[in-house]
Amino acid sequence: MRPSSARRRRIIGWGFEGESFPPSPQLVALLERRVGRGAPFPAADPASLQPPPPQRLPELPVTASAEPADRLAHARGQGLPDVLRMRTGSLPAWPDAVCRPADADEVEALLDACSREQVRVIPWGGGTSVTGGVNPAPGAGPVLTLDLAALSGLRAVDPVSRLATFGAGATGPEVEAALAEHGLTLGHFPQSWELSTVGGWVVTRSSGQESLGYGRIDDLVSGLEAVAPAGRLSLPAQPGSAAGPDLRRLLLGSEGRFGVVTSVTLRVRPRPAVTTVEAALMHTWADGLEAARDLVQGGARLTMTRLSDAAETEVAMAIGLADTFAAPLVRAYLRLRGLGPDSCLLLYGAAGEPVDADAELASARWVIGRHRGIHLGRRPGRHWLSDRFRHPYLRDALLDGGYLTDTLETAATWSGLDALRDGVTAAITGAAARASERAAVLCHVSHPYQDGASLYFTFFLTATGDLDRDVARWAEVKRAATAAIVAHRGTISHHHGVGRWHAPWLPAELGEDAVELLGAAARHLDPRGILNPGVLFDPTDQLEE
Amino acid sequence: MRPSSARRRRIIGWGFEGESFPPSPQLVALLERRVGRGAPFPAADPASLQPPPPQRLPELPVTASAEPADRLAHARGQGLPDVLRMRTGSLPAWPDAVCRPADADEVEALLDACSREQVRVIPWGGGTSVTGGVNPAPGAGPVLTLDLAALSGLRAVDPVSRLATFGAGATGPEVEAALAEHGLTLGHFPQSWELSTVGGWVVTRSSGQESLGYGRIDDLVSGLEAVAPAGRLSLPAQPGSAAGPDLRRLLLGSEGRFGVVTSVTLRVRPRPAVTTVEAALMHTWADGLEAARDLVQGGARLTMTRLSDAAETEVAMAIGLADTFAAPLVRAYLRLRGLGPDSCLLLYGAAGEPVDADAELASARWVIGRHRGIHLGRRPGRHWLSDRFRHPYLRDALLDGGYLTDTLETAATWSGLDALRDGVTAAITGAAARASERAAVLCHVSHPYQDGASLYFTFFLTATGDLDRDVARWAEVKRAATAAIVAHRGTISHHHGVGRWHAPWLPAELGEDAVELLGAAARHLDPRGILNPGVLFDPTDQLEE
Repeated sequence: MRPSSARRRRIIGWGFEGESFPPSPQLVALLERRVGRGAPFPAADPASLQPPPPQRLPELPVTASAEPADRLAHARGQGLPDVLRMRTGSLPAWPDAVCRPADADEVEALLDACSREQVRVIPWGGGTSVTGGVNPAPGAGPVLTLDLAALSGLRAVDPVSRLATFGAGATGPEVEAALAEHGLTLGHFPQSWELSTVGGWVVTRSSGQESLGYGRIDDLVSGLEAVAPAGRLSLPAQPGSAAGPDLRRLLLGSEGRFGVVTSVTLRVRPRPAVTTVEAALMHTWADGLEAARDLVQGGARLTMTRLSDAAETEVAMAIGLADTFAAPLVRAYLRLRGLGPDSCLLLYGAAGEPVDADAELASARWVIGRHRGIHLGRRPGRHWLSDRFRHPYLRDALLDGGYLTDTLETAATWSGLDALRDGVTAAITGAAARASERAAVLCHVSHPYQDGASLYFTFFLTATGDLDRDVARWAEVKRAATAAIVAHRGTISHHHGVGRWHAPWLPAELGEDAVELLGAAARHLDPRGILNPGVLFDPTDQLEE
Repeated sequence: MRPSSARRRRIIGWGFEGESFPPSPQLVALLERRVGRGAPFPAADPASLQPPPPQRLPELPVTASAEPADRLAHARGQGLPDVLRMRTGSLPAWPDAVCRPADADEVEALLDACSREQVRVIPWGGGTSVTGGVNPAPGAGPVLTLDLAALSGLRAVDPVSRLATFGAGATGPEVEAALAEHGLTLGHFPQSWELSTVGGWVVTRSSGQESLGYGRIDDLVSGLEAVAPAGRLSLPAQPGSAAGPDLRRLLLGSEGRFGVVTSVTLRVRPRPAVTTVEAALMHTWADGLEAARDLVQGGARLTMTRLSDAAETEVAMAIGLADTFAAPLVRAYLRLRGLGPDSCLLLYGAAGEPVDADAELASARWVIGRHRGIHLGRRPGRHWLSDRFRHPYLRDALLDGGYLTDTLETAATWSGLDALRDGVTAAITGAAARASERAAVLCHVSHPYQDGASLYFTFFLTATGDLDRDVARWAEVKRAATAAIVAHRGTISHHHGVGRWHAPWLPAELGEDAVELLGAAARHLDPRGILNPGVLFDPTDQLEE
């Protein structure tokens, strides 16, 4: 069982009760200047929310709860429209019950019964999908949400081979706490780390913020077990193989359509003594891009690099790095060094023994210096490390203050990144302009690879406070941004997944024949189509549902 | 088109005409001591080989050749029984014609026609399969072998993103020659490199000898195009994505069952100034294993490590490293350092600028020294580098001398390697002993990963010169070895693939449900089942066919 936590999960919005990340006055001023002043988005008292009566479920082999509190806690993921709908209690569909299987056999029994009775099943890890991946849709027959929290715990550890097997429901903190007892770490730190789970990481092809050092979850999975209505997959831990196609990779990214991942064997490594992040300021975005590429292609042993564009750099200063270098004296110094409003913040980190991390950072500084970077020391990096799991709380506070904010991400080859950033930025501001509004768009490059990197966008709009109108305005921006991504040969998702909301664009990226192949695999593993229908491959635009 | 080569491919046996690798007198003496003296295996004059009359093919949209020379050149792969059968002209089935499509459209037209007319199709790259992967089987309807040599050439290069797109038929030397003009390398050097092709590497999940530095082919594929009877897959080059399961990984290892790979975008990197391999002698296998693991888990930037067991170390000395350190004076020195008959040869290499490669090798030496390794300098490594593509020729020379030799490989986690090696070695010697024979078994660890490594076995038996008897004796050893591999949780192949010969054991490794999933994908992409039937997933034991 999941160890009891002192912190209680919030019903509406991100994270835990009592935690928050209010915007700094500088950020509020900046947003007002950039997009205007909005109307605070209403927020119902969670106690007043009442799901409608559930559809009746057939008898199931594992106790299912139709308690309103359970249905409420599993009603929606963490996308912006999810939060807007939860805040107004206006949901087009609810899970009719929640089930918490204790092991893979119970998952199997449940899938058998649900197949037979045509009950739709939504596998649920941390419920942090920002793509509609855990949302029920209106439709025929009841919806059962399968909360996998009980499939938890460290089940086996092999320190010689550096492998550890976890139940799929283990959350980020549970994974790291269990590994720490063995002096090990997984090093997988997505922004959702405090809430998201091993199984969720696998089925959405998650990428942690230190993926440069530790790899994507794709690289970290050595073996896994999954249960589908048509059978069980037990793919053993293997360092490398040519025994046919790697079916682990078919489960990775399957978003609940191919089966329920029940346990995963992960590649772990010794826990580093320190993780240190330094900062530099680059004269231009182009300089920063060259520096980031140079670092990764040159083989720098960093755990992360993150280059903010000028717009994001300004916001980074406004939300908390201000104390470091937005002070007038620092600004004057930077101006003296020739750094103007185009300057871009570059964070880069290393981990290990202090002496080794320092050596890696020193050689990174040297590379960055070749691209005219100005060293800013470690204070911004410490700040970023201490806040990195708090950022999602900002969205709720901004809604209270009258602003909608959301993020989206893509990836492309190095030679295509610049056009992709320009295209997506223009698409977002253009969509806003068509509605006679202004959008603020920030971007950073992170998750660098030998052949390219991801682009992560944050955008801000004013809120009107009207649910349908705000969801529609958000949806217009998403449509424009996703169309621009595919037009510029970016991927529709680097690490958020496809879910319901990106699904209509999957054929544009992979081709119709590839998407049909996914459908064929799903039909084989789940002949009655009960597993997470509407997710991953579905041509319907579900952004406003 | 493939650039014309001065060298002509041999019809029977490995490689090019005029090239050979005769065993040293020391090796012959060693084999005689270990397994006895065999009867030279007969070798027909290739000119005397005449395929039987072909089955009639329907009219096809691309010219098909039923010329005996073409059918002969595409009759079999390069497994030991393939060579035995070719040497005696005794094949249970032949391709009825050979087609050389010029582009993906011609491949598509051919697959359409073959689907309609129920013609079985064998995609052919370099024809170097050692698992029966390109062999026709007796059965209903004609067999067309699709030689992809014309789908060649460097089609695009993006030096900024370090990507290069090749036609699937490009061979190893063609790839490296084309990349050299751009100062780039792929760094993928399987032992078959001189003959094998990009498409073949992809569909068999090939691993080059320097996979530690450059990655497996799985890691090197960024995008690919494939044609199947049911459609085309065009998966763009992407550094990282969460847009559903990575379908590139479904084509990787598909061995021609899911479609014909027509072009591949590969991750390339700057050509190193030098590749340097050093050698050390370890007191024991256990010391060597610890050193190899320590090197890779410690993050040594090596391109390869290769640890031979004591038996292979003795043979390595006998086949050519003798001049380096088998001389009486050297042996006396080694004895003085406490190295006896259990000592194991460890090769390790690095690439880059000389100063960087030297630094990496120096730090590797330090790690190896901690495990009591004795430095042997660079001469054995130079020897290995210069001979590494010649080793396959040795088999033909040994057949002439009365010995059967074959190789097989697996991989497992570090903690399982020792038991796996013992189990497979015992299985091979046990199978020979049941037939009142002796087998010599050599093993090395190569392709190390964070969580494990591959084991590569070479075994020797005497030849009787009788085809059926020798194939049956070989098959008994393969069965025993593969059963031991799955019993010890190794993979049935680390880089040779599944083909016809390993297929019956795939369910033991992955489970029946996983193999059925592969079958479902094949049925979707190839509804009439024309593509390479009998390969990858087929429960029939085809070792003696």
